[in-house]
Amino acid sequence: MCAASRLPDRTTKFSDWYSTVITQAELVDQSPTKGCVVLRPYGFSIWEHIKKVLDEKIKAHGVENAYFPLLIPESFLKKEADHVEGFSPELAVVTHAGGKKLEEPYVVRPTSETMIYHMFSRWINSWRDLPLKVNQWANVVRWELRTRPFLRTTEFLWQEGHTAHATREEADAMARMMLDVYIDVIENYLAIPLFTGRKTNKERFAGAAETYCMEAMMPDGKALQMGTSHLLAHSFPAAYDVKFQDKEGAMQTPWCTSWGMTTRLVGAAVMVHGDEKGLVLPPNVAPYQLVIVPIYRTDEERDEVLAQAHAHRDALQASGVRVFIDDHTGQRPGAKFFKWELRGAPLRMELGPRDVAAGHAMLSPRVALPGMDGKQTIQNNSLVESVTQMLEAMQKQLLERARGYYQEQTFDGESIREFGKPLKKKNGFYRADWCGSGDCEEKLVSSLAGIRCILDGPVVSATCFGLCEAPAAHRVVIAKGY
Amino acid sequence: MCAASRLPDRTTKFSDWYSTVITQAELVDQSPTKGCVVLRPYGFSIWEHIKKVLDEKIKAHGVENAYFPLLIPESFLKKEADHVEGFSPELAVVTHAGGKKLEEPYVVRPTSETMIYHMFSRWINSWRDLPLKVNQWANVVRWELRTRPFLRTTEFLWQEGHTAHATREEADAMARMMLDVYIDVIENYLAIPLFTGRKTNKERFAGAAETYCMEAMMPDGKALQMGTSHLLAHSFPAAYDVKFQDKEGAMQTPWCTSWGMTTRLVGAAVMVHGDEKGLVLPPNVAPYQLVIVPIYRTDEERDEVLAQAHAHRDALQASGVRVFIDDHTGQRPGAKFFKWELRGAPLRMELGPRDVAAGHAMLSPRVALPGMDGKQTIQNNSLVESVTQMLEAMQKQLLERARGYYQEQTFDGESIREFGKPLKKKNGFYRADWCGSGDCEEKLVSSLAGIRCILDGPVVSATCFGLCEAPAAHRVVIAKGY
Repeated sequence: MCAASRLPDRTTKFSDWYSTVITQAELVDQSPTKGCVVLRPYGFSIWEHIKKVLDEKIKAHGVENAYFPLLIPESFLKKEADHVEGFSPELAVVTHAGGKKLEEPYVVRPTSETMIYHMFSRWINSWRDLPLKVNQWANVVRWELRTRPFLRTTEFLWQEGHTAHATREEADAMARMMLDVYIDVIENYLAIPLFTGRKTNKERFAGAAETYCMEAMMPDGKALQMGTSHLLAHSFPAAYDVKFQDKEGAMQTPWCTSWGMTTRLVGAAVMVHGDEKGLVLPPNVAPYQLVIVPIYRTDEERDEVLAQAHAHRDALQASGVRVFIDDHTGQRPGAKFFKWELRGAPLRMELGPRDVAAGHAMLSPRVALPGMDGKQTIQNNSLVESVTQMLEAMQKQLLERARGYYQEQTFDGESIREFGKPLKKKNGFYRADWCGSGDCEEKLVSSLAGIRCILDGPVVSATCFGLCEAPAAHRVVIAKGY
Repeated sequence: MCAASRLPDRTTKFSDWYSTVITQAELVDQSPTKGCVVLRPYGFSIWEHIKKVLDEKIKAHGVENAYFPLLIPESFLKKEADHVEGFSPELAVVTHAGGKKLEEPYVVRPTSETMIYHMFSRWINSWRDLPLKVNQWANVVRWELRTRPFLRTTEFLWQEGHTAHATREEADAMARMMLDVYIDVIENYLAIPLFTGRKTNKERFAGAAETYCMEAMMPDGKALQMGTSHLLAHSFPAAYDVKFQDKEGAMQTPWCTSWGMTTRLVGAAVMVHGDEKGLVLPPNVAPYQLVIVPIYRTDEERDEVLAQAHAHRDALQASGVRVFIDDHTGQRPGAKFFKWELRGAPLRMELGPRDVAAGHAMLSPRVALPGMDGKQTIQNNSLVESVTQMLEAMQKQLLERARGYYQEQTFDGESIREFGKPLKKKNGFYRADWCGSGDCEEKLVSSLAGIRCILDGPVVSATCFGLCEAPAAHRVVIAKGY
């Protein structure tokens, strides 16, 4: 029953560790649909917590939820040249329906810009109709060749926000603000530190003028894109005939944004925080923050212990703590400890007749907290306060711990001559300065890496990492990506 | 600006009234996808409120949410004979993906039994794994020939619950309990009265042993099926190889249930409660329960009135009331009154400088309440209490009002000789007794009607309505359906 013997070694076989832990912890299961997984209740619950907090924050910015059709007429995608080129290889196409061949096929939405701009053209007539801000929680399908549960699947769940504004400045501010909302959710709920900035021309969303992005570092030193927020090129709404009459009576094309985050976030949290025993879930998104394992021998002891467990649960739930009592009769306490370690419950309580008699409970945090390693004896009358404090401390601790390995694997690089070879062999993030040319960006391909993010700050070198002798224009983060 | 001149007459042109009101009130808009509508924010918000309360009630019964793939291998549907026969004509089929023709096509899920039972066969091995209870909030696609927004659309949103149990009795109790949960939501939140019972063999879900159902009467006297809960035939899990080892070590097939409610509920609420001025939304699911229309002439008055409006909103929101201040500057108060009447906001507050000075507010309920017709003057210090009471009274009032027209259009019928002809010409619900034979059920086709529901109570006549001379076995509700 030793966890280490069951999970592949996380340091040397990170990818195997990931696949094994998400299956054993029952976050996902394989499905018969190519490239898709089933999100099992324990995994889906993490997404539900992310969704709840993100939905509230999106609504707080005056964005309203709506729902648009799954199936999009094929011709709609062809209206914007970059967009159709970007998505064509990934489309799933409905050619038959109701027992007949369709006159025009439908594509299963890979994203909804084309449908939503069609609708915007009906809803936007005057400056009075702007800004228009909608969000949709939906499933999308992109026929990916290589898939990994959560990180890249043929079908995934996400939210996609779409807004239209009278000016480029206002739209750009909206796109940046949504990036800030995303950063808030990822750092404060998923406890994952981020590098933030913009994508290069090469890496931008098909049809965008600017793609704001957030990159997280996985423990293997590779980058994972955590969400994006786009200022769309003016050609995009124009292609769908979205126009408005401005205050002076002239017809104008609005500036639009789109932004999304996906179920990928669950996979990121697994990778960033997990350890050799299994998952470690940040308390703010954990399905259960505290799991009570009752310990007893006789029926009498059982009644007594369960009564106390229910009293603890009720008191904690009243303070907003998510509690689960694992009173499954078919398993021994040791197996339950192992299970909830594997499943990453932030706190575990062991509760036996002696604890009940002594008026205290034994709490084990899933990771060592400052000044608290191993079991803690907590008096019943301070239980709610202690649990709340421990959960807060753990949430903070996980972010700090992740910052630690970020630091160890982030390097400042002068030129590709210096970091090109190391990068090819060993992962990690390299901060360097770039001239801005596609040619120099292309030189990273031989290191299997790319520019993940143009940082907002100033450059530090005089010249480009690409040895082109052009002046440095942008500070960038270079890494291999998932 | 008279509402009556804009909406088609609700009594004589009910269907036109419905189509016009849902569009004008911005619940939906047409989409370019055949048979699909866009759920606009005001319409989607009603669904979000239904979803929130239903989700809580489902979870309270130990059911967990999960997510299963949208695309189902075509061969999966063919495993259960009744099921494939039931759904074949309605399927949308993905034949191409990733730029290639697929070896095996996928169908877009019309419902997920086939996928979920495949997964159940992986998750269920022993009696210890039972009961297994999952629910999914998802979109489904059924290629319908005739569609109407909300009531029947090619794509719709729903929840589908699926459970597996060791015994038929336990599964049957689960299916009945979920029907009770549905009745609770529909009567207490949507304020719609119901006839409840079971479907006949002919009307059962494809693959079910028993379909429990709820039928609502629309104001035109036609029946709308509001949701169903099925005990599945034993052949269903068997076809997907779902088996468990019982306590004695023998292999058994579990008994399963499935149950769902859809976005149709929004359309039902529109039809049941609306009037000649537009929507009337039950307070428990209304996006905004109270809309404040500020009235002012000067900038000074504006500041004063808006400050009071914000104070009222904050006090009401703190008590859980959903408030919207319509401070749109491009519209006059009269146009706003008209708009929020059309959109069915339960309460409207007019707030001008005199009201602010007098320390009171003028409230107009959307429908006359017992002892309250027209505007009510409410002192500021009793505003929260009065609003809460008026919303509760309106919620109750709407259910009572609907019960009224149910009574007027529900008849007790002896035989088809007596009600067959009237039913053909005039809608309404006929309660009658039935022998149980398909032949007698078939006789209703010429009246364009059918048995909507087998009631739980005893029969009242000695003989069947079908004039077959067989003894009456079931009391049923006969009506035309949507």
